[in-house]
Amino acid sequence: MVTENTRKRLIVVGGDAAGMSAASQAKRRMGKDTLDVWVLERSPHISYAACGMPYMIGGVIEDPDKLLILKPETAREKRGIDVRLGHEAVAIDVGARTVTFRAGQGEAQQQSYDALVLATGALPRVPAVEGVNLDGVEVLRTFADGLKLKQRLSAGAVKDVVVVGAGLVGLEMAEAFRSRGCNVTLLKRTASALLGLEPAFDEQVEAALARNGCVLLKGSPLEAIVDNGRGGVAAVRAGGETRKADLVLLAAGVVPNTSLAAQAGIDLGAQKTIAVDEHLETSAPDVFAVGDCAAQTHRISGQSVFVSQALAANRMGKIAGANVAARLSEKGRFKTHPGTMATVLTKVFDLEVGMCGLTVAEARKAGFDVAFAWVKDRYRASYYPGTGPLYVGLVFEATGGRLLGGQLVGRQGAAKRLDVLVAALDAGMDLERLSRLDLGYCPPFAPAWDPLLVAATVARKKLEQ
Amino acid sequence: MVTENTRKRLIVVGGDAAGMSAASQAKRRMGKDTLDVWVLERSPHISYAACGMPYMIGGVIEDPDKLLILKPETAREKRGIDVRLGHEAVAIDVGARTVTFRAGQGEAQQQSYDALVLATGALPRVPAVEGVNLDGVEVLRTFADGLKLKQRLSAGAVKDVVVVGAGLVGLEMAEAFRSRGCNVTLLKRTASALLGLEPAFDEQVEAALARNGCVLLKGSPLEAIVDNGRGGVAAVRAGGETRKADLVLLAAGVVPNTSLAAQAGIDLGAQKTIAVDEHLETSAPDVFAVGDCAAQTHRISGQSVFVSQALAANRMGKIAGANVAARLSEKGRFKTHPGTMATVLTKVFDLEVGMCGLTVAEARKAGFDVAFAWVKDRYRASYYPGTGPLYVGLVFEATGGRLLGGQLVGRQGAAKRLDVLVAALDAGMDLERLSRLDLGYCPPFAPAWDPLLVAATVARKKLEQ
Repeated sequence: MVTENTRKRLIVVGGDAAGMSAASQAKRRMGKDTLDVWVLERSPHISYAACGMPYMIGGVIEDPDKLLILKPETAREKRGIDVRLGHEAVAIDVGARTVTFRAGQGEAQQQSYDALVLATGALPRVPAVEGVNLDGVEVLRTFADGLKLKQRLSAGAVKDVVVVGAGLVGLEMAEAFRSRGCNVTLLKRTASALLGLEPAFDEQVEAALARNGCVLLKGSPLEAIVDNGRGGVAAVRAGGETRKADLVLLAAGVVPNTSLAAQAGIDLGAQKTIAVDEHLETSAPDVFAVGDCAAQTHRISGQSVFVSQALAANRMGKIAGANVAARLSEKGRFKTHPGTMATVLTKVFDLEVGMCGLTVAEARKAGFDVAFAWVKDRYRASYYPGTGPLYVGLVFEATGGRLLGGQLVGRQGAAKRLDVLVAALDAGMDLERLSRLDLGYCPPFAPAWDPLLVAATVARKKLEQ
Repeated sequence: MVTENTRKRLIVVGGDAAGMSAASQAKRRMGKDTLDVWVLERSPHISYAACGMPYMIGGVIEDPDKLLILKPETAREKRGIDVRLGHEAVAIDVGARTVTFRAGQGEAQQQSYDALVLATGALPRVPAVEGVNLDGVEVLRTFADGLKLKQRLSAGAVKDVVVVGAGLVGLEMAEAFRSRGCNVTLLKRTASALLGLEPAFDEQVEAALARNGCVLLKGSPLEAIVDNGRGGVAAVRAGGETRKADLVLLAAGVVPNTSLAAQAGIDLGAQKTIAVDEHLETSAPDVFAVGDCAAQTHRISGQSVFVSQALAANRMGKIAGANVAARLSEKGRFKTHPGTMATVLTKVFDLEVGMCGLTVAEARKAGFDVAFAWVKDRYRASYYPGTGPLYVGLVFEATGGRLLGGQLVGRQGAAKRLDVLVAALDAGMDLERLSRLDLGYCPPFAPAWDPLLVAATVARKKLEQ
C-alpha cells in the first residue's frame, strides 16, 4: 500500500528538454501515486525547441508558440509533474538531500529530495570586453532571448548587425538576420576554419556566407562594444576597426552551467561539465545530471567532452529518468548512456552542412595516426537535372583505415547522408567496410556509386599508397 | 619481357555496366602490354545508365546520349579495350577455353581465352499469352528499347498505355507515360502489395499512383493482347475485362540471361542465375560471372538470390576484373564480393520509396522469427514549414531484436535515410543499437528524434511486450 511515508520525491533543476524528459520518464515509470516530481525552472518557459529559434526569429516559422513543445499546464495535467516556473535553485545539500530555491523575488525555501536531476544547461559565453551590457547587445539561449530578438527585429530599427562568433548559432542567426533585411557581419575570433571543417568544406560554407551577403571577418576578436551615448550600442571594435552596429549578438559559444553543482561539492568533468557515470549519476548519491550541463563520453575518442545537443539532452533525460525510477523503486534495469558521436547538422543558407565523429585536429589530439580524404561528387546521377556538388570528407586511421569522422557539405543530399557515417562510425567500420555498403541508387537521389562509396574508395587509395 | 606468348586474353561477354567494369579493371591492373581484352556486345551500345531510361523517356532528361556513360571509342582509345559491337557469343567451350561468336549476320568464329567474364545480364520476362509480338508491345531493357519507346511517344499517337507489371520498371514508367500525357493502367498479376512492401507502405505508394492519375489493377494477370487487325495492338484482356491500349509495356520482371552458361555446363544457382563463389568465379576454371546474370549472397539471409541492381553490377565487375588480373598475373590478392543487401530505391511520382534487407515475407521464408513495427513520423521538425509524413518500417527478429530489413516512404527524407538502415543492417545492429545512434538533428532536415530512432524505439516496445 502506498502511504505518505513511501512516497518519494524527485526534484529536477531545469525544465528544458533534458529536465522535462527526465521528469516525464521517471513519473511514467514510477506511477503517479508513488512519486512526486518537482521541476524548478527559473524562466517562464519549459521544453522549447531551441534549435528552431533562428527560424522563428528569421520569420520562417511565424508563430513562436509552435516552438513550445510541452506546455507547463500539459506537463502538470497530463503528466502529473509539478512544474514550478520562476523558481530558481540556489543551493544543494547533497548530504541532507535538500535543494534551496527561491520563487521569483521571494524568500529562500528548502525542499528535500529522494533523487535529484540536474538539468541546468549551458550559458552563453560573454566576452570580457567593454560594452557587453549595453542595450542592443543580445544572446540567444532561452526562449525569452528568442522572443526579444524577434521583437527587436520586428520593431524595424535594426539595420546593421554584428554577430560575435561563427559557430552554429552565429551561422544560423546570420541567415535569420539576412532574411529580416539586415546587414550582417560575423566576427570570428581565430583565423581557423568554421566549425573545425577541413579547408575544402570550410571554403564552401564561407562561399555560402559571401554569396548571401554576409561579411565574415576571421581572426577578428571582439575588442569592445561602443556606446551610442544613450546606453545603447553604436558600433563594435574588432581587429582594430570600428563597425557600425544597431544590434550585437554574442554567439561566442556556451559554457556548462554548473556552478550550483560545483558549490555543492559535486565532481566536475571536462570543460567544467558535471562528471557522470554511464548511468548519468554524479559523484553525489542519487543525484543525476543530464543535458548540456553534463559530461558525455565521445564514442570514438573515449574522452569526456562537452557537447551541446538537443538529441543528447532528450536522450540523457530519458535515461536518467528511467534510472531514477529504477533506483527509487528498487526495481528495473539501469539504462546506460551510449555517449556522443558529436554529430553536428546545420543549414547555412542554401547549404546542408554536417559533421560527425572527430575532426582531423581532434583525432590528432586524441592520439590517432590520422588521415583525411575527400571528394567532390554529386548528390544525384550526373545526367539527372538538378544535380549539384556534394563534398564528402572522411577522417580515418592512416593505418588500417578505421573511420574516425566525417564531413559533408552540399545544397542537397548532405543532411541525412551524414547519418550513414554516424552508423558506420558507431559500428566501428573501416574504409573497406564502408566502401562495400549496398547503398541505394536511383538517379534522382544518388549516382550508382553513392558519393559516400566514392569517398571511401578514394580514401582507401590513400591507405594503400 | 612481354612477348606474344606471354600476352593473355580476357573475353567479356556483355558490355553493360558489369562487363565494362570488369574489362576496365582487368586492363588497368594488368597493363596494356600484357592483356588483350575483348568485349563482345550484341547491341550497338555499351555502358548505358539503364535506371535513367524512364526519365529519358518521360522527358526529364532531354538528351538520350547523356545516358551513355562510356562511349565505345573512349573504351577503345582511352582504356585499350577491344569493344566489338554487334557481336553475339553463341557458345562457350570451357574445356577448350574458347568462345564462339557471330558478328552481325556473319559466320560463327571462335576465339580462345585465358579468362572469361560472363556479363550477360537479364532479359525481360514475357508473359506466355497471345499477342505479345504485336506492334506496340514493348519492353524496356536495352538502350535501344528506351530509344524506341521515346520515339513512339514523341510520334504522338500513343494515348492509352497498359503497363503489365508493377515492379520498379512498371512504376517508374507509369510516371514517364503520365508525364507524356498518356492514360496509364498498371496490371498487377497478384493482389499482393507493391514491391513486397508492408500494407501501410504499399497504401502510400498506391495512393501516389491514384493521385497522379494511374489506374492500378491488382490481381489482374494479363490474359491476351488484342490485335487491331493491322498487326498492331488494340487492347489488352486482363481480369476478364478488355481495355483499350495503343501501347503495352511488358514490365513483368526480368530473368537472368544464362542459357549460354547453362549450355556450356556451367553450374547455375538460385533462379537460374550463374552460381559463383565469393571471388565471382563460376564452376568453370577462369570463368567469372558478374551483374544480373550472376547469383549474389543475401547479406542477411545468407541465401543465394537473384537481384538486378546497377551498383551490384558495377561492383561485381570491378571485383571480377581485379580477380582476373590476379589470376592471370599470378599476383595480387583476390577480392571478395560482399553480397547484396537487396537495396531498392525508387521514385514513384512525388514519393521516395526505399527498402533494404529482407521483407517480412522473405524473413519468414528464410526461417527467422520475424516481427515488424512502423511509425508515421515527419521528415522535418514538426514546427518547420514544409514538413510532411515519413513512414519508417523495421523488420527484426522477434527475439533479440536484430534488424533484418527496413522500408521507408515519404515525399522527402526517405531516400538517403534508407542508407542508414543499410549501414545498420551491414553492422548487424539490433533495435537497441539503432535507437542509440547519434543521428543528426536540425529542424529543416529532421526532428530531434529522427524518425529512424522513433521507429527503433517503437519496435523495441514490441520486443519487450
